[in-house]
Amino acid sequence: MPKIIVEVMPKEVLLDPQGKAVANSLHRTGHKDITAVRIGKRIELHFDRPVTEADVAAAQKIGESFLSNAVIEDVVAVTVEDN
Amino acid sequence: MPKIIVEVMPKEVLLDPQGKAVANSLHRTGHKDITAVRIGKRIELHFDRPVTEADVAAAQKIGESFLSNAVIEDVVAVTVEDN
Repeated sequence: MPKIIVEVMPKEVLLDPQGKAVANSLHRTGHKDITAVRIGKRIELHFDRPVTEADVAAAQKIGESFLSNAVIEDVVAVTVEDN
Repeated sequence: MPKIIVEVMPKEVLLDPQGKAVANSLHRTGHKDITAVRIGKRIELHFDRPVTEADVAAAQKIGESFLSNAVIEDVVAVTVEDN
């Protein structure tokens, strides 16, 4: 089934308290080499037909306007899977 | 900066109410071709040195044991970026 994957992450300049908490836990369990953790969203948009260029452009727009909060988040990737 | 990206999604067999709500909203705003939406997590593990095969294996393990709930979620991808 074709999908468009939209990936949204907290902006680099902002603290990510959830990621910080996970990083602290990983350090306590011995994973000292992981310097930071950031947690975002991975959103799959499913289609029952092949995905077109226009769909990808629409998905980018949906990602920026509807699936993310532009004040605190960035759309870092829009990719097609299983087309 | 090298990163390992761990992607976690709700299992296919389970309902994803958050995704369902987004799909309904998209339908109302005219995106009728999107048959379903599923929302998962994208977790970045940052390193300040090049990432090794062992790090990727460790990240897979961390993803399965710590970053996801195996009852309701699957680790769908573990990839290296900017190595």
